[in-house]
Amino acid sequence: MKASAIRELLKLTEQPDVISFAGGLPSPDVFPVEKFQSACQSVLAKDGLMALQYGTTEGFKSLRDRIAGYLERYGINTRSENILITSGSQQALDLIGKTFIDPGDRVLMEEPTYVGALQAWNAYQSNFVGVPIDADGMRIDVLRDTLALGGKLIYAMPNFQNPAGVTLSKERRRVLVEIAEEYDVLLIEDDPYGQLRYDGEHLPPLFSLDGENVVYLSTFSKILSPGLRLGWMIASPDIIDRLIQAKQGTDLHTSTLIQMIAAEIIAGEFLDKQVQLIRSVYRDRRNVMLSAMKEYFPSNVTWTSPQGGLFLWVTLPPSLDSKEVLREALKKKVAFVPGEAFYADGSGANNLRLNFSYSKPAIIEEGIRRLGQVIYFMLSNSPQPIESAEVKS
Amino acid sequence: MKASAIRELLKLTEQPDVISFAGGLPSPDVFPVEKFQSACQSVLAKDGLMALQYGTTEGFKSLRDRIAGYLERYGINTRSENILITSGSQQALDLIGKTFIDPGDRVLMEEPTYVGALQAWNAYQSNFVGVPIDADGMRIDVLRDTLALGGKLIYAMPNFQNPAGVTLSKERRRVLVEIAEEYDVLLIEDDPYGQLRYDGEHLPPLFSLDGENVVYLSTFSKILSPGLRLGWMIASPDIIDRLIQAKQGTDLHTSTLIQMIAAEIIAGEFLDKQVQLIRSVYRDRRNVMLSAMKEYFPSNVTWTSPQGGLFLWVTLPPSLDSKEVLREALKKKVAFVPGEAFYADGSGANNLRLNFSYSKPAIIEEGIRRLGQVIYFMLSNSPQPIESAEVKS
Repeated sequence: MKASAIRELLKLTEQPDVISFAGGLPSPDVFPVEKFQSACQSVLAKDGLMALQYGTTEGFKSLRDRIAGYLERYGINTRSENILITSGSQQALDLIGKTFIDPGDRVLMEEPTYVGALQAWNAYQSNFVGVPIDADGMRIDVLRDTLALGGKLIYAMPNFQNPAGVTLSKERRRVLVEIAEEYDVLLIEDDPYGQLRYDGEHLPPLFSLDGENVVYLSTFSKILSPGLRLGWMIASPDIIDRLIQAKQGTDLHTSTLIQMIAAEIIAGEFLDKQVQLIRSVYRDRRNVMLSAMKEYFPSNVTWTSPQGGLFLWVTLPPSLDSKEVLREALKKKVAFVPGEAFYADGSGANNLRLNFSYSKPAIIEEGIRRLGQVIYFMLSNSPQPIESAEVKS
Repeated sequence: MKASAIRELLKLTEQPDVISFAGGLPSPDVFPVEKFQSACQSVLAKDGLMALQYGTTEGFKSLRDRIAGYLERYGINTRSENILITSGSQQALDLIGKTFIDPGDRVLMEEPTYVGALQAWNAYQSNFVGVPIDADGMRIDVLRDTLALGGKLIYAMPNFQNPAGVTLSKERRRVLVEIAEEYDVLLIEDDPYGQLRYDGEHLPPLFSLDGENVVYLSTFSKILSPGLRLGWMIASPDIIDRLIQAKQGTDLHTSTLIQMIAAEIIAGEFLDKQVQLIRSVYRDRRNVMLSAMKEYFPSNVTWTSPQGGLFLWVTLPPSLDSKEVLREALKKKVAFVPGEAFYADGSGANNLRLNFSYSKPAIIEEGIRRLGQVIYFMLSNSPQPIESAEVKS
């Protein structure tokens, strides 16, 4: 139900004249088309027959080697044997569900959380249990109490979380890994944006703090191209073995041609330069969005200030329902995703998620200006919030 | 268990000096590398930004249009709205399992059947029920009796079945579709090889005989390249809608770049010529294998004579176990898949599957010569079969 509602919504927001902050799209302005052209030519000229043939389920060895090499500088020490190539991170989530989640299993996740994880694990009849977040990420104190009641796995997005944009603090990372170990529960570290930090210092991945209980997921979607559908997961050998078996029954393996093109592209220094470029473009867009919100939004609207990633999270006064705001906003040709999409229990009615990576700065400013108008308009028409009325009486 | 046994086996058979009839690999001799080079260039030059971006779950519209157009000549009348692009046929099987199979559901399938279907649906705790086959494909009379005891879906590979190489007769196709309708059970038509007919006349796809209860699956793996991981499924709108939802949670969508490359390649007349080429190469290899078997195999070994596809099916005298034969064959550097892999219940001990598409004709002849020697050797060393002894006493 929820999935299709979001699909319907996204269709509406895809009208060409709508300024959309709804999608999670990388900016095409940074797509390295020429690099892809030369990589395609090179792969097909050198190893065309291999690129067009079946491959192994675990993935193209050189790609796994190069991912391991790339991640070393990021604080992750691993080898190709611990890496499984996936058809994007979404498939990694599906394989985890297929392998580890039985109907009714308690899955502990940040609240709000990534809508794709809800979709993927809904199919395996998970019992989703939300753990609230604050500016430092998941509330580990609440997690501990929740976990005492049982849990099959913990799902966390430590860097620039989707949708809230918050980052798990260094201290909480350490404790989270300890707790997962103490309760012997699988800890899923979903890290699609970790490379895209615009301010502050890089924090250690959970995987680097433990390695036994942690399954690390990432993807080329945000640093190279989402159209590849190419990601990877890293885990201990026995976990990876089970995931490989699950993947074999699911799609045999990820496209050989795509894997070899990516391996060719990341062979040299290119990816570092590409990530630098993306950081500078997205940092600028984030800054433009933050300034515009300060200028155009009412003072009783608040938002997060992410140090990286693609999204920020807005909290409206409690009298406003973000679905109603969206309906009004679409009349002004501006769109976002209402907060409810990111909650398993349908709360989040006065929240919304804004993407700042996709649109150019001038468009971002114009979109935020329109959205500010809509919010002012809705506030002027909304009844007094019940809470305030009660305080007054 | 079975999946990993086959994986281990396939690893052994992948040693470079082994003549392998084990895999289901298309021949790289027919891979159109240059066509891929020009298609990649063209797609990236014309529509690079689109090719690298996220796409819709159902798939690239032009690709779906062109698949519909291509299939018209094959006897299938459909529109892009009824087509879902998948990451190979294996994913189609997984999506069917995810959407339609509940634990314990009876899944009726040919015996022997495609090992990938067993793997895909094992994950959903299917109750596999085998229906025997003969030279005309699935025994529809037995199917009717079996279905009377219940069934959630029927899985059939009507053309050049994997592993047996048999083809469902025209009359049985009609009856099969009627039965599926009568019992209101989903009929999965898996048709990866239908274009690869070497003799005889094209028979109507099940989908063309009904369309409501049938889900049709096919793939570019055997007519273009398996390394793409690109297939499609066709069904009525309500079924396709459910499958699209399942795919969204599974991997969002299949690689945009791969879909656009395939759409570019099949835009003109190329695919027709390519299929003609493959037919002529594989027909020759099948003929070489059949002649060599006649020359080198003992007279009490029998086999099927497929009119198309990639495989034929050998029946050894009952005293021989094909796993033992494989162990001996690997010493002579020749490999195949033992029959048991294709049975849910582990029967098929005196059967084996041979692939004739991958190796060049001279290699095929040499491999069959060695395999004949191994079978003669095993027969000379094997005890009298119990059946014969009993007849004599």
